[in-house]
Amino acid sequence: MKPRITLKKIAKEFGVSISTVSKALKDSHEISEETRGKIKAFADYYNYKPNSLALQLRNQKTSVIGVIIPEIVHHFFSTVINGIEQYANEKGYNVMVCLSNESYEKEVSNFSVLTNGSVDGLIVSIARETQENEGYKHFDAIISDDFPLVLFDRIIDELKCDKVIIDDIGGAFKATNHLIEIGAKRIALITTQDFITVGSLRKQGYLKALKTRGITIDENLIYKIDDTKDLYKQIEKVIQVKNPPDAILAVNEIYAAIALKIAKEKGLSIPKDIAIIGFTSGLISEFTDPALTSVEQHGDLMGKQAAELLINRIENTAPSEYQKVVISSNLKIRKSTLSEN
Amino acid sequence: MKPRITLKKIAKEFGVSISTVSKALKDSHEISEETRGKIKAFADYYNYKPNSLALQLRNQKTSVIGVIIPEIVHHFFSTVINGIEQYANEKGYNVMVCLSNESYEKEVSNFSVLTNGSVDGLIVSIARETQENEGYKHFDAIISDDFPLVLFDRIIDELKCDKVIIDDIGGAFKATNHLIEIGAKRIALITTQDFITVGSLRKQGYLKALKTRGITIDENLIYKIDDTKDLYKQIEKVIQVKNPPDAILAVNEIYAAIALKIAKEKGLSIPKDIAIIGFTSGLISEFTDPALTSVEQHGDLMGKQAAELLINRIENTAPSEYQKVVISSNLKIRKSTLSEN
Repeated sequence: MKPRITLKKIAKEFGVSISTVSKALKDSHEISEETRGKIKAFADYYNYKPNSLALQLRNQKTSVIGVIIPEIVHHFFSTVINGIEQYANEKGYNVMVCLSNESYEKEVSNFSVLTNGSVDGLIVSIARETQENEGYKHFDAIISDDFPLVLFDRIIDELKCDKVIIDDIGGAFKATNHLIEIGAKRIALITTQDFITVGSLRKQGYLKALKTRGITIDENLIYKIDDTKDLYKQIEKVIQVKNPPDAILAVNEIYAAIALKIAKEKGLSIPKDIAIIGFTSGLISEFTDPALTSVEQHGDLMGKQAAELLINRIENTAPSEYQKVVISSNLKIRKSTLSEN
Repeated sequence: MKPRITLKKIAKEFGVSISTVSKALKDSHEISEETRGKIKAFADYYNYKPNSLALQLRNQKTSVIGVIIPEIVHHFFSTVINGIEQYANEKGYNVMVCLSNESYEKEVSNFSVLTNGSVDGLIVSIARETQENEGYKHFDAIISDDFPLVLFDRIIDELKCDKVIIDDIGGAFKATNHLIEIGAKRIALITTQDFITVGSLRKQGYLKALKTRGITIDENLIYKIDDTKDLYKQIEKVIQVKNPPDAILAVNEIYAAIALKIAKEKGLSIPKDIAIIGFTSGLISEFTDPALTSVEQHGDLMGKQAAELLINRIENTAPSEYQKVVISSNLKIRKSTLSEN
């Protein structure tokens, strides 16, 4: 598929103004025949269609914010959407949410639906497949059109737009440090595959804490989970080994809850035999027994911050440089790491 | 606010065709001066605006389905959205989700954003406040415009559209019956306030099971929770009484998980001292200890069914009578009701 072409891009290509391109495409005699010829040939090649309805729409303010998230069953994303809603509503904006289902193609399709006049700007957390394939043309297209865009949580550093992230390194550092302080010596990390940025950042925090405290890194204690396969079987391998770890840091709540369940089934006492911490404090952590210590992610705050950055961009009240806001995370200590003595 | 007026409504008001109204508003001499006069006066009074852009948009197929849900942090709604997505994607439709946050005003605002050319049809679960206030004008408006609409889960029987519901009465009946079979004599019901239809339907199923099995109904065992207040304090009152119940049926997973937690804190053994069942099998039920027996709601199936009804309506392949599809629910028995002996 050829990239979508805009008046702006054609103008850039030939080093002329947008108005010159527009006139050339309308065959205006104000423009030299030569320039008209090459601009029209270029526009033809890229299937440029001066769709006046689409243009009208695109320029019309909708007071709607589009949000694209990888999936909806993660409580974290629900809290972010709540935060976006809250701030957006205060400012008189509505919110529309689309799911990429972790698919590149679906993400691209959401982009075309939402940026075609339905919304004034986009807040996006990038799909797993997009991160894996590193295909960011759909982002480049709207960025070069100056379409307001904010990335959150799963971001791409190179993209020129505002970003909001959780302090993933700091959160994992705090969690690992807490495990060391309660006496853990062999801390397993249950993380995602490397191309998921948040997983790899949390791994950095984990490694940093071990180094800082002078604990030798054991690569055998790092488990990379494939989300598309059976989680129980993969996490069982962390615990059912000759020399099991005395603590686990899991990069999400589900991994942590499954680890806790398996550890109990194997007759281990928590936190005595094995202490467990999960990232994100969702619905589950509070209801496991013992309740799970969590790195709290403040999804609502992240959502509010993303909405604020986007609305400032939409309303032209943002500074010209793009901003990267880091939301700090804190440890919510519950009984899965709280020794009773 | 006056109701939004359409050509169709004006035509109906005067018993003329839409084309007559359209011509009258354009001051066509094909129409008698008298008729023109009264139609124009009526249209003026209702602020009729022949917005050609909006009309073009409204008539343009978008291949997008709009979904309005009361809140996003309920796992049940996430599964419904997944089901809608799956079916819609297969049929070449995108999905946009808006939240009403249980607010009437927000729901109305979502209606106006989504039905203004962004989507081909709507799938809606009604906001608590709308159910409480019984203000359905926004529904009436799109129904009289023949705008494709499907209601799910929280529905209004009187509205003329397709509907998908869970067999709430049947689910509660099965759950209560199961509790009686494992020996429960005093079964408490933790439900919502009466205006939430699903809560009152589940109460009907509970009462029906008690009657069928010849158990006297004790109104003191029925607790109506106010979701806007502290849940723990309200649910504590179910258990911390002189003569506590020997079983609990809760109309959602959170109420059930909180009841289980409080019962354990009070030193009760589950299911020996008190058996517990929750409605909906979300993320929590599997991870409590003991795991919670649940009435499974098949949100994904509900979503698929809703999307199918809507797309048939959009593509004019639906029967002329509106359909009401009932998804049956089944009991997923886990350890919170499973006696070990």
